[in-house]
Amino acid sequence: MTDWKSEISAATGRINGHIVKTPVVRVNGFGLPYGIEMKLEQLQHTGSFKARGAFNTLLSQPVPKAGLVAASGGNHGAAVAFAAHRLGHKAHIFVPEIAGPSKIRLIRGIGADLTVVPGEYVNALEQARAYEVESGAMQIHAYDAVPTVAGQGSLMQEWEAQGLEADTILIAVGGGGLIAGALAWLQGARKVVAVEPETSYALHAAMAAGRPVDVDVSGVAANALGARSVGRICYDLAAGQNTQTVLVSDDAITTAQYALWREKRQLVEPAGATALAALMSGAYQPEPGEKVAVLVCGGNIAPDPFVQD
Amino acid sequence: MTDWKSEISAATGRINGHIVKTPVVRVNGFGLPYGIEMKLEQLQHTGSFKARGAFNTLLSQPVPKAGLVAASGGNHGAAVAFAAHRLGHKAHIFVPEIAGPSKIRLIRGIGADLTVVPGEYVNALEQARAYEVESGAMQIHAYDAVPTVAGQGSLMQEWEAQGLEADTILIAVGGGGLIAGALAWLQGARKVVAVEPETSYALHAAMAAGRPVDVDVSGVAANALGARSVGRICYDLAAGQNTQTVLVSDDAITTAQYALWREKRQLVEPAGATALAALMSGAYQPEPGEKVAVLVCGGNIAPDPFVQD
Repeated sequence: MTDWKSEISAATGRINGHIVKTPVVRVNGFGLPYGIEMKLEQLQHTGSFKARGAFNTLLSQPVPKAGLVAASGGNHGAAVAFAAHRLGHKAHIFVPEIAGPSKIRLIRGIGADLTVVPGEYVNALEQARAYEVESGAMQIHAYDAVPTVAGQGSLMQEWEAQGLEADTILIAVGGGGLIAGALAWLQGARKVVAVEPETSYALHAAMAAGRPVDVDVSGVAANALGARSVGRICYDLAAGQNTQTVLVSDDAITTAQYALWREKRQLVEPAGATALAALMSGAYQPEPGEKVAVLVCGGNIAPDPFVQD
Repeated sequence: MTDWKSEISAATGRINGHIVKTPVVRVNGFGLPYGIEMKLEQLQHTGSFKARGAFNTLLSQPVPKAGLVAASGGNHGAAVAFAAHRLGHKAHIFVPEIAGPSKIRLIRGIGADLTVVPGEYVNALEQARAYEVESGAMQIHAYDAVPTVAGQGSLMQEWEAQGLEADTILIAVGGGGLIAGALAWLQGARKVVAVEPETSYALHAAMAAGRPVDVDVSGVAANALGARSVGRICYDLAAGQNTQTVLVSDDAITTAQYALWREKRQLVEPAGATALAALMSGAYQPEPGEKVAVLVCGGNIAPDPFVQD
């Protein structure tokens, strides 16, 4: 059994100074009759929470001379490239085509080797595994590894230290690394609601099947949330805590994304607006008096507002 | 003599619950060899600090049945319209053409009456004054009135309560309402640096002349910072404290604006990036060990990334 509280506390200490302690804010709006807390994790290095797991992995074990390899829809790859660059390691990132030009540019800009793989995330992962065997580079899994999950868990420890009041935290789920970190840290102390697109719902399907199963992935958030199956670590934690999952449509995600911009001047990628979409669409309806919080997890929108592709 | 500490403390109490307590963050980056504190005031209602002064004005005096009138490059008008709408008053906003479609849409969306005036801010102000006389509506000045300045001063009181550590705070200046509020609150306890575009530098010119004087205004931040002369309240406070002013080019502003997006996923209008531009361009160079903070004051960028004009 992993002692998650210890793993996450250690991760928090290890990555301190390497990551951004991202801001929190209490807001009204979005057509909701109650206020919500938000954590703006898109201010994290490389625009998503992924830098936490990447730094924790690199700082908790020896890194081979061949450096690092990662497969990623974009955000994890950017984070691994960034952490590797900061800590003086080589990195080779494999991304599927659906990562899109903005995220590909982000990774290239950091200076990592990059291979764009036809197909979806799982195809990039296959090539990354082949490269790992051949090169001796260390693979950093995007969501299903203890150091990754412990790193992502630092976010919830940090949020509590910042005065989080919510009874319930809504978190978008792809492969499940972020929510696994939250569940692992909270251990039931607060309710965590998993929010997935109707177009990619690996955790919802796993909870229904009683084990991780494959789902088809598509939709506006696919390059961030489009894992074909949820990680084992996430599944075990979610099943153990009987985590509630809710689904939101692509339209609901896009509506929330626009509302975040129009009302709060926060321009985020679809995945970053997915948790809010559950409140705005009514997919999750808090009880009277229930205090809710929304994690804004990523901001790497496409197209980039400053760059023509 | 205005007792500014009392005025601002009263404003803070008055507008509590009506405004957003905006988030703060400590970051590295922007090519700077030191970390900085930032306050993300673009999360304020209507995307800029102006809501503070508008609410304070409306809540500190009786409002006539004819409602409110304001002249504005856009942000102040949006804030007055928003505060009026929330508190159940009518509002008529006069904006110059240079406000641009994004800000005009923002004001229209709130539901205020709106007149778009050919020319620049001063032309809108003339029409607003004529309307004030004719209608009996209450004029809310964008920057040169005690309730406005006291409301903007609540920002600095709030930032200190959030644990501000900086020795020096960089603030963009247009008509001077925001920096006046900061100077009035701090009373010399921390250094405040006024940052103005080379294309509109009303405070810099006033400090050189020994009184507010007219300057030509143009450039990328003109609809937010393009006051032809600085307010008397701002001038008196800045002259009394011998406030340092620095100038930045439009290119430096645009570079900082892009860096805020690329590195921190904060998409802001040029005025919102003007204070940061002073650090990135070297127009202001902190002493070794000097702790600096940057106020990000507005996010109403044009074009709107979600709307085609």
